[in-house]
Amino acid sequence: MTTTVTATETDFLEACRVRIEAELRSRLTTSRAGDTLSEAMAYSVLGGGKRIRPALCLGAALAVGQDKDKALVPACAVELIHAYSLIHDDLPAMDDDDLRRGRATTHIAYGEAIAVLAGDALQALAFEWLSESPGLSDNVLLRMIRTLSRASGHSGMVGGQAIDLAAVGQDLAIAELETMHRRKTGALIEASVMLGALTSQHVAQERLEALSDYARALGLAFQVQDDLLDVEGETVVIGKPRGSDAARAKPTYPSLLGVDGARHHLTRLLQDARGSLADFGPEADALREIADFVAARTH
Amino acid sequence: MTTTVTATETDFLEACRVRIEAELRSRLTTSRAGDTLSEAMAYSVLGGGKRIRPALCLGAALAVGQDKDKALVPACAVELIHAYSLIHDDLPAMDDDDLRRGRATTHIAYGEAIAVLAGDALQALAFEWLSESPGLSDNVLLRMIRTLSRASGHSGMVGGQAIDLAAVGQDLAIAELETMHRRKTGALIEASVMLGALTSQHVAQERLEALSDYARALGLAFQVQDDLLDVEGETVVIGKPRGSDAARAKPTYPSLLGVDGARHHLTRLLQDARGSLADFGPEADALREIADFVAARTH
Repeated sequence: MTTTVTATETDFLEACRVRIEAELRSRLTTSRAGDTLSEAMAYSVLGGGKRIRPALCLGAALAVGQDKDKALVPACAVELIHAYSLIHDDLPAMDDDDLRRGRATTHIAYGEAIAVLAGDALQALAFEWLSESPGLSDNVLLRMIRTLSRASGHSGMVGGQAIDLAAVGQDLAIAELETMHRRKTGALIEASVMLGALTSQHVAQERLEALSDYARALGLAFQVQDDLLDVEGETVVIGKPRGSDAARAKPTYPSLLGVDGARHHLTRLLQDARGSLADFGPEADALREIADFVAARTH
Repeated sequence: MTTTVTATETDFLEACRVRIEAELRSRLTTSRAGDTLSEAMAYSVLGGGKRIRPALCLGAALAVGQDKDKALVPACAVELIHAYSLIHDDLPAMDDDDLRRGRATTHIAYGEAIAVLAGDALQALAFEWLSESPGLSDNVLLRMIRTLSRASGHSGMVGGQAIDLAAVGQDLAIAELETMHRRKTGALIEASVMLGALTSQHVAQERLEALSDYARALGLAFQVQDDLLDVEGETVVIGKPRGSDAARAKPTYPSLLGVDGARHHLTRLLQDARGSLADFGPEADALREIADFVAARTH
């Protein structure tokens, strides 16, 4: 990795993170207080995280010439879907993880039943928030809801998770591994970018396709980086025991391509992501910065 | 119970059931085949059931002077939410039920992980279908999505389920029991009626309120009837072991009011439901029939 991340480059991501945290915190604590379910929902959503998906959503709004605040509530909705998926992924019947981002997972903190329900309620809340996003036309909101529901359901994230479960202990070819990741994590990352782009109703088809290409390459890059961190990282940095994927015999990029092969693959995917933005000017700098962040991240 | 259900009265419910089954079957089996997750989704949704919620949705469309086919896809979306909630309710960490409608529950048939995911995917699919319902304006679809997401999340169904879990082994007052049921099952029943009513954009506020009153009384009546059947019914008829609520020390209407008291409460709720429709003519006969069905049902 020769990419350098300057202070300016990380400004956008950090500003997004702060803005999104504040919005999520205010929305999750004002109306909902005093019951265990609400607490578990807030615990799961406000437990840190890089907020990459909301940042992609805001960055894509900028890339199509919109004020990024127009994408704020859609960005929060995407983050709720992501948060719910982590709660359910961590359940004993799924990945059975006790630790996420250095804290007890939701079912460890609140019990399994409340964890299932908190995930369910967060998914409903994502569509509730999205359907009420201010400053967007009914038509735009509906297109966003269609995009997010498709990306998070059977043909997207949840379908990918089912493939992932079935793949434990199996030998997957690299193409199958990519299909799984395109659905499990890629679909929601692409939806994040698309929701940001949908804030403008005057985007040329080629630009939408370029943004979609960017998102697909970035989503896979993020996953390759995740797999590499799982092999190379330390528990204290990545917040989960090192090598936990290998311990479950999950197929990974390093297990299929070797560590060097996976690093090479990552470099190419990030080149693809940046290349997709070639026809954009400085309005896409935020999205370029996020690609640089993926290249440089250590957790 | 002195209510009699004539052949004519049951025609609407039966016609709805057939129509909804066909629509659900066609939608769940055409595009989705060959993988375990799809199978589990179809297994859970197509496993029978009275289809009361979709019938309420179609009946409410008739009550506001619309063609009931306008409410067909919204009705199916509500049924997906209901089906997902049953899958998750039955999980070992929740009610731990092995049997539903005389068949193995989804986690028994497909394993716990796939059951969690099938529920998750069905929730997303409900919003996907709803956002694409034909013949309805963008504004109507958004209002339906807002209604369904609120009714199914924290402030509705899922929130009620969390209260229910916390109530096991507790002494609830009748008011607390009703609050729990209003959210756990009542909110989705009310949403079913409201989605049907929203197919018309020219309904007077008093009519909407009357329909909402009808739905609230009917939802509670349905729950009282459920509790009574759990005490009085036989496994072979109700599809689950008799007395399974009592065995889990769940507070019920018969446990709080006695069997006769619960029967009396049921009669009053059904009178309230029918009374709410007093200003409607024959256009609300389908909704009246559904109230009669609740009074007469034995499973």
